[in-house]
Amino acid sequence: MLATSPIKPGLEGVIASETRLSHVDGQKGELIIAGFLLEDLAPYAEFEEVVHLLWHDALPKRTQLAELRAALRPRRALPAATLGLLRQAAEQKVAPIDALRMAADTLSIHSDGTHEGDALLLLAAFPGIVAAYWRLLNGHEPIAPHPDLDTAANYLYMMTGSAPTAQQVRGLSTYLNTVSDHGFNASTFTARVIISTQSDMISAVVGAVGALKGPAHGGAPGPALDTVFEIGSPENAERVLWDKLNRGERLMGFGHRVYKVRDPRADVLKAEAERMMLGSEKEDLYRLAQHVEQVALRVLEEHKPGRHLQTNVEYFTALVLHGLDIPIPLFTPTFAIGRLAGWTAHGFEQIGLNRIIRPASAYSGAHGRQWQALETR
Amino acid sequence: MLATSPIKPGLEGVIASETRLSHVDGQKGELIIAGFLLEDLAPYAEFEEVVHLLWHDALPKRTQLAELRAALRPRRALPAATLGLLRQAAEQKVAPIDALRMAADTLSIHSDGTHEGDALLLLAAFPGIVAAYWRLLNGHEPIAPHPDLDTAANYLYMMTGSAPTAQQVRGLSTYLNTVSDHGFNASTFTARVIISTQSDMISAVVGAVGALKGPAHGGAPGPALDTVFEIGSPENAERVLWDKLNRGERLMGFGHRVYKVRDPRADVLKAEAERMMLGSEKEDLYRLAQHVEQVALRVLEEHKPGRHLQTNVEYFTALVLHGLDIPIPLFTPTFAIGRLAGWTAHGFEQIGLNRIIRPASAYSGAHGRQWQALETR
Repeated sequence: MLATSPIKPGLEGVIASETRLSHVDGQKGELIIAGFLLEDLAPYAEFEEVVHLLWHDALPKRTQLAELRAALRPRRALPAATLGLLRQAAEQKVAPIDALRMAADTLSIHSDGTHEGDALLLLAAFPGIVAAYWRLLNGHEPIAPHPDLDTAANYLYMMTGSAPTAQQVRGLSTYLNTVSDHGFNASTFTARVIISTQSDMISAVVGAVGALKGPAHGGAPGPALDTVFEIGSPENAERVLWDKLNRGERLMGFGHRVYKVRDPRADVLKAEAERMMLGSEKEDLYRLAQHVEQVALRVLEEHKPGRHLQTNVEYFTALVLHGLDIPIPLFTPTFAIGRLAGWTAHGFEQIGLNRIIRPASAYSGAHGRQWQALETR
Repeated sequence: MLATSPIKPGLEGVIASETRLSHVDGQKGELIIAGFLLEDLAPYAEFEEVVHLLWHDALPKRTQLAELRAALRPRRALPAATLGLLRQAAEQKVAPIDALRMAADTLSIHSDGTHEGDALLLLAAFPGIVAAYWRLLNGHEPIAPHPDLDTAANYLYMMTGSAPTAQQVRGLSTYLNTVSDHGFNASTFTARVIISTQSDMISAVVGAVGALKGPAHGGAPGPALDTVFEIGSPENAERVLWDKLNRGERLMGFGHRVYKVRDPRADVLKAEAERMMLGSEKEDLYRLAQHVEQVALRVLEEHKPGRHLQTNVEYFTALVLHGLDIPIPLFTPTFAIGRLAGWTAHGFEQIGLNRIIRPASAYSGAHGRQWQALETR
């Protein structure tokens, strides 16, 4: 029976489950987050509001938002075991995404044994882990969380020790909201497979961070910014981009597997980058990036006519995060801070289904091998 | 298009990939490990031979086995960061499977950046992590690995400080081999999803340990032994078992989702338990367990005729591990030491496919929600 079923490589197109959390419509170029078009939600909500929306399928009322904030506040300070491990990782120059994964894993030491408690612990600790690790990597002591700041603001504060401006907080919140969920991407699916065994939220999220790390996951905004820096000045754009294409390289920041007409996340982040960078000391970089984008789209169409590649989320992610002075090595860990909203929400949803995720495999190996003692091999 | 595709809950029956590593034939009651029927391999091979078989699709020649042993030896001692974290976990009485997961995660600090190096690091460190953690939990200092002992023997040695007998080493090796691989179970599938993003072997294995932890994963041999202890004496068997069934409880250690006629792993482990326990101080327990098994099979058939439940792998796992004086809280971590052979082999196989695993989802949530400011909610 199994032998006649088709193999579904990569499970492409196989619908593994229903979800009420998000919907990616590549044909229309739409992303729905819990009932909202992305552009109707991400630029307005605080990150905590999106977390509540994903967890409870409704925007929080004032008291509910206050409760979530109050639950996160006492969980923000990193436990001694977590900080100690980060120090040892920093000594060996471990990559920030690996440091985030192993530090998140240590939170099990302080689990209260509930999925809700674990989700709060993770959500509260992620920004502090990333900020503390970056400071340790650069020879600085970590900064304790500020008692009056929420997730986005505290992340920026713990990086530098200065309270961020309202505009910076808005910029980061919009970014975190924009990447908060995106269907069954590989990291979200990992979290669901793990928790489908009735395991726990920390195990699920740690697995998701491990999947997010892989370059095939998507979400590698660093290289897009590197290209803009390499071009440096508008008049170099055409030459540098053609050189890359003629060497057979991909232009980073363009094209998406699913979104063919437009990537709604790119539009939201482009507007945010413009708002943050025009009139700031980074205006020149923004204008250069805008020029590079236009040249790249034209050059790509001349190079392979008819493919209509669009600017993707990585391109404007790079601009927004750079606009917030977040260093390139922290781009993926910062993505994880936002996606954690989705990972935990999918965890709750999957636990509720009470059904293990376990596909079949087809055996392609040998048959009928006979044991031979070591001496006779 | 997607809307008309059927949803595959839990991906049941969906073939996610080919694998040359193992084949579970529930109808025939067969398990093939890399070309060998389980019963032709598990009772004869050293664990390192099965690792080499899974990694390289052939039993090792003498020099190859020597190379694997030599590669594992210097990697067995636990790094300071790993041991330090275990100490802190033990202070909070973290469950051994969580301690294994977070300690395994810290191995990234010492990764050489290759999949092979990571797989060796994991394989060398797992037994020491479990043994050290158990000692710390019980107020004893960890014991350093013995330079002359291989995986199975060293695990037993690091638990007690005494070199195990040849019979004990054979017993544990047979157990580890028996659970070394089993198709696309949820933990193995987790490892494959993670590494399919081109992530790394440590991230994949940490995710797999997280999935193994869940009670729905299967492999919970503790409760089967608890039942035997509860019965205590042959004449109580019938009464205790009927009481459980009449209360609507499941009898642990009987029945399997896939194996309907026989579980080949149960047969292999039953023979091993008999060999180890007959003539030893544990002979009485073995005879009691044998009696309980026979009564349970009869009682189950009377309770629900026609279902023909069979004794499963958990029942005899419990006997073998108890025969080796491995405490019940370490049953699942010990399972992980064996399954690590499969997890790493699937990691290598999946990396070679170079294809991300990413199913689709169907959206069941709301549409057309409009943003409302906090004050107006």
